[in-house]
Amino acid sequence: MPTPLIALLTDFGEEGHFVASLKAVIAGLHPEARVVDISHDLPAYDVRAAGFVLFACARFFPAGTIFVSVVDPGVGTARRLLLVRTARHWFIAPDNGLLTLALEAEPAEEVRELSASRFFLAARSTFEARDKMAPAAAWLSLGVSAAEFGPVVGTWRKLSVTRPRLVGSKVTGEVIHVDRFGNLITNIPAMLLWELEQRKGPAGCLLKIGRRPALRAFGAYAAAPRRRPFFLAGSLGLVEIAVREGSAARVLRAGPGGRIEVGPLRKP
Amino acid sequence: MPTPLIALLTDFGEEGHFVASLKAVIAGLHPEARVVDISHDLPAYDVRAAGFVLFACARFFPAGTIFVSVVDPGVGTARRLLLVRTARHWFIAPDNGLLTLALEAEPAEEVRELSASRFFLAARSTFEARDKMAPAAAWLSLGVSAAEFGPVVGTWRKLSVTRPRLVGSKVTGEVIHVDRFGNLITNIPAMLLWELEQRKGPAGCLLKIGRRPALRAFGAYAAAPRRRPFFLAGSLGLVEIAVREGSAARVLRAGPGGRIEVGPLRKP
Amino acid sequence: MPTPLIALLTDFGEEGHFVASLKAVIAGLHPEARVVDISHDLPAYDVRAAGFVLFACARFFPAGTIFVSVVDPGVGTARRLLLVRTARHWFIAPDNGLLTLALEAEPAEEVRELSASRFFLAARSTFEARDKMAPAAAWLSLGVSAAEFGPVVGTWRKLSVTRPRLVGSKVTGEVIHVDRFGNLITNIPAMLLWELEQRKGPAGCLLKIGRRPALRAFGAYAAAPRRRPFFLAGSLGLVEIAVREGSAARVLRAGPGGRIEVGPLRKP
Repeated sequence: MPTPLIALLTDFGEEGHFVASLKAVIAGLHPEARVVDISHDLPAYDVRAAGFVLFACARFFPAGTIFVSVVDPGVGTARRLLLVRTARHWFIAPDNGLLTLALEAEPAEEVRELSASRFFLAARSTFEARDKMAPAAAWLSLGVSAAEFGPVVGTWRKLSVTRPRLVGSKVTGEVIHVDRFGNLITNIPAMLLWELEQRKGPAGCLLKIGRRPALRAFGAYAAAPRRRPFFLAGSLGLVEIAVREGSAARVLRAGPGGRIEVGPLRKP
Repeated sequence: MPTPLIALLTDFGEEGHFVASLKAVIAGLHPEARVVDISHDLPAYDVRAAGFVLFACARFFPAGTIFVSVVDPGVGTARRLLLVRTARHWFIAPDNGLLTLALEAEPAEEVRELSASRFFLAARSTFEARDKMAPAAAWLSLGVSAAEFGPVVGTWRKLSVTRPRLVGSKVTGEVIHVDRFGNLITNIPAMLLWELEQRKGPAGCLLKIGRRPALRAFGAYAAAPRRRPFFLAGSLGLVEIAVREGSAARVLRAGPGGRIEVGPLRKP
Repeated sequence: MPTPLIALLTDFGEEGHFVASLKAVIAGLHPEARVVDISHDLPAYDVRAAGFVLFACARFFPAGTIFVSVVDPGVGTARRLLLVRTARHWFIAPDNGLLTLALEAEPAEEVRELSASRFFLAARSTFEARDKMAPAAAWLSLGVSAAEFGPVVGTWRKLSVTRPRLVGSKVTGEVIHVDRFGNLITNIPAMLLWELEQRKGPAGCLLKIGRRPALRAFGAYAAAPRRRPFFLAGSLGLVEIAVREGSAARVLRAGPGGRIEVGPLRKP
């Protein structure tokens, strides 16, 4: 059986020594460790954005993967570090809500405070990713049992999550993420779209954002006309708003929090 | 024998979940797979730029390397996915011309449509890199034979490529790429430079771009005077225009498509 | 025993073929080599910045790690390439001062010119990282002995390094680096801070930079008030100036070379 993957997600950027320090510590403790970068270019201090990216890829990682997620404006304070086990994965992160979405997708089965300082490089630190989280991940990948790292935790911090709502034959929701191509990812499951289409037929299913004329759906980015925003069932199983070879975020001047309505709206 | 490398080249950027999703899928199917990133910061939708970067490094990769190249504005449409075997390497890419330069350097010996959906995570997808190309690369690296992935393809899309032309004692060509340092890579083989020098002597061999005075050649970046553009035999075996510790692209306001003339021109 | 790590540090950027070419060459010569990226987004030609990043993470890498550091404005000229052995690590770099700080932290025990062309892809090159340094690292990781790569070198280039000075009960120093979060890293050891505090008590220990009112110390980023610059004992054992969830570099308009004074100064 191969050693578990250690997947790293931070807002450390790629231009400095931060990420390399984590990898160095892991390699020192576990030379055979397999480390994968998710991203280090998350917006600084943006816990919500980090939580989305983790949510978006965690499900594709093999069983046993250890995720180390560090967007941590509270580093060095009394906020706890968490070690979480789900049915498939391990998550190490500060207790600041970063894991909210990931743990909705795969519920926590064991949550512990990462506090056993014998696994740490330093008991006090302004760089806990290097001094506490990376070594804990390395020891965990070597087979140390979860109970060794600290006591069970009853509650942990969660970010507020807005749910889509079905009102009559319309669903309201919001934009939760803007990706690299300017696509607006919403919190509306693509399944809901299919349900609406069953009821009303595809022609009746439009999407409204802000004061723009309602948008139509297309099956692929390249199937849509250029320059005109449209929506589609995106690769995460969520409704996505896009502009072919362009940025929906820019064209629509929309971003996280933007309100969405989907249903049998007026024709564009 | 070690498992073949899987080398990834995309325009997905490093700030999101896209690249990690590919690596997760590969690791899930083939835990011992060895994955190398070529780049994920290619300009979005720029098939030509991706093709250049692939061409520029493919020759240095070991035999058996599987290149997965994804700059794919047509994702989700009827455009095919290709699986190509050359004498040394495998290439997986959309059929949009991305492989043009790479396959000039090492001709295709077998070209197949990547269509056998039993290797895919999903038959329909707006993220075919994750759902089709990454799993195909993983299965290929595990030893599945090429014929399993789909039927042989007779023709595939090629981008137009401008050839340098020898007219009298002058060679005309064009800029095909601007690198990170602002160096202008041309399509003129450095060998031609040496031939011209044989005939006319190095003093007679100058380079003209736009309306600028003709440029001189130097053997190394640091051998040239500062601020003044010059040309040299670059590391890809092509004539390159550079400014010492500066950007030739900026100084000359030139980029891909810029016309070049090399030969016994008037002195600068 | 696992094969040594090869850690790469360059200013090549992530958008082109440069970094991949190094990895390809290494993988071709030593398929089991383990390669780690430190960073490739260092400011172009900035030897000093590269030296800092190398210094900041080298100590955390396991014994035997081979560092290949390439910020090399003199590439292709007569400047030498160095191969350095310390008590714990190997360093390959151009002889341009890049290794100054790293070799202060772990003194050189053997310094050689990397010149044996039988290990090179090409004897003359404008891309010596690919054609000379990467292959040398691969051969070294395969067990080739240092003496094979070239003759012992007596002196090598060092950058000027400003030392902090204790004058009375004050320490003067300077900013040596700005990190991704805008934190200003100084050359003042955090130990000195503790010493001053022993003598004068923490209340008396303030930091002055430019004409700003003197700054106070806090134990963690998140313990400080928002928007107001402060200082702390940073994760490299050096005094650091920070703004909570903000950029001290921007707020204070300061950068490398900025003069610092720490001690029992007037209250802010």
